[in-house]
Amino acid sequence: MNVVDYEGLDERVSALEGRVRQLEDSLAIMRLINSWGPAVDTGSSQAAADLWYEDGVLDSDLSRLEGPAAVSAMVDSEGQRALIDRGCAHVQSAPVITVEGDRATAIAYSQVFLHAQEGHDVWRVSANRWECQRTPDGWKVTRRVNRVVDGTADSRALLVGAFDPPR
Amino acid sequence: MNVVDYEGLDERVSALEGRVRQLEDSLAIMRLINSWGPAVDTGSSQAAADLWYEDGVLDSDLSRLEGPAAVSAMVDSEGQRALIDRGCAHVQSAPVITVEGDRATAIAYSQVFLHAQEGHDVWRVSANRWECQRTPDGWKVTRRVNRVVDGTADSRALLVGAFDPPR
Amino acid sequence: MNVVDYEGLDERVSALEGRVRQLEDSLAIMRLINSWGPAVDTGSSQAAADLWYEDGVLDSDLSRLEGPAAVSAMVDSEGQRALIDRGCAHVQSAPVITVEGDRATAIAYSQVFLHAQEGHDVWRVSANRWECQRTPDGWKVTRRVNRVVDGTADSRALLVGAFDPPR
Repeated sequence: MNVVDYEGLDERVSALEGRVRQLEDSLAIMRLINSWGPAVDTGSSQAAADLWYEDGVLDSDLSRLEGPAAVSAMVDSEGQRALIDRGCAHVQSAPVITVEGDRATAIAYSQVFLHAQEGHDVWRVSANRWECQRTPDGWKVTRRVNRVVDGTADSRALLVGAFDPPR
Repeated sequence: MNVVDYEGLDERVSALEGRVRQLEDSLAIMRLINSWGPAVDTGSSQAAADLWYEDGVLDSDLSRLEGPAAVSAMVDSEGQRALIDRGCAHVQSAPVITVEGDRATAIAYSQVFLHAQEGHDVWRVSANRWECQRTPDGWKVTRRVNRVVDGTADSRALLVGAFDPPR
Repeated sequence: MNVVDYEGLDERVSALEGRVRQLEDSLAIMRLINSWGPAVDTGSSQAAADLWYEDGVLDSDLSRLEGPAAVSAMVDSEGQRALIDRGCAHVQSAPVITVEGDRATAIAYSQVFLHAQEGHDVWRVSANRWECQRTPDGWKVTRRVNRVVDGTADSRALLVGAFDPPR
């Protein structure tokens, strides 16, 4: 048996633990974001609320929701029910994720497709900034800002966040 | 050289091996799902069949295909050839993946875009449940259920699978 | 304390380091690809150019750009400015990534949505082959070939790259 540098081994394992956690965090945040569509498109108001941090905010062109209970109420609303009855699909694009310790941001597009007489209409394409927080129950959304891509500056102000230098 | 807890190190390495395998599994399943579009949109019937488990099922609004040979025949069919000649793109959204040992499920949207006189039409937006199995040749699809998002309950029944508790 | 196979441990850690690097590479390439939309949709010409390798090529139906400066000029062009003012979203689908050492390829669809009077139009759905290179500054694009999915063979020739055997 050759000589092995045990201390070096300990350091390499510690480095791997950090890198693996970073990878797990990225996949967990993708899962968090990708769970939004299935929640709102099925009227699963509890599942939608569970994605949110206790004082998390959903700030969109359409409304400003504060806290999981407000998210839940939106999913249960008549307006959302009408979309579900027509057939709606809230699809998130693959995000640009930055994890920094217990916080993370993700910049992504989202599309809402609505069932139409012939195929589906693209109702809204939006820019999104998701801010997330690690909690004992996994990653939760602390803030999502969502602005329709319509040529005005708001959506662009979100998208350029993909190029923010790490803090 | 300081004292190192070798036994602890062994346990940490074992834990990392399990976590890394879980991450690899998630990416392998994404790759499996994302390979479907390139296969059917190019008429690569063998490549499409190779994604499927030996008795895998593709259960959609349009047809029920049992086994790789049936998948291959569908890709080679006149109907699929007509879509390819027009210009079709089967695009999968990023899925909600749950890996449990040698089995995995993924809940995702899919969109089929068709080339039109002006740009592209959205022909179908669907909900999907992919069930996968680890094999000696990598992950394979054992069952894909696909239902168009049209306001009826079928697509919603698939999407709520994103919130199933782990078994 | 039980006997531990230290040499075996060293080998296991080395194997993990390789596997973790492979996973990190895959996520880094997704991030690279997913950064393109936010760059071109906001007129961030420097950020767009920074994604490209020093002699990287963007070969599309619309133009052939050679090197980061040409990419930057395209983003600053009047044509691109008109798309931004209308409201455009360049959305990439999740790719089929193959990493081989310091080089990688990714096969993916892309969609360009344009803001319209009612919702958004799907202007272009394209097939893409991204070729990437590891550099001291992270992964960069050496070549992107992009062809609209319109029923002709060009887009299919790109998509079948998802089934290339590893070299």
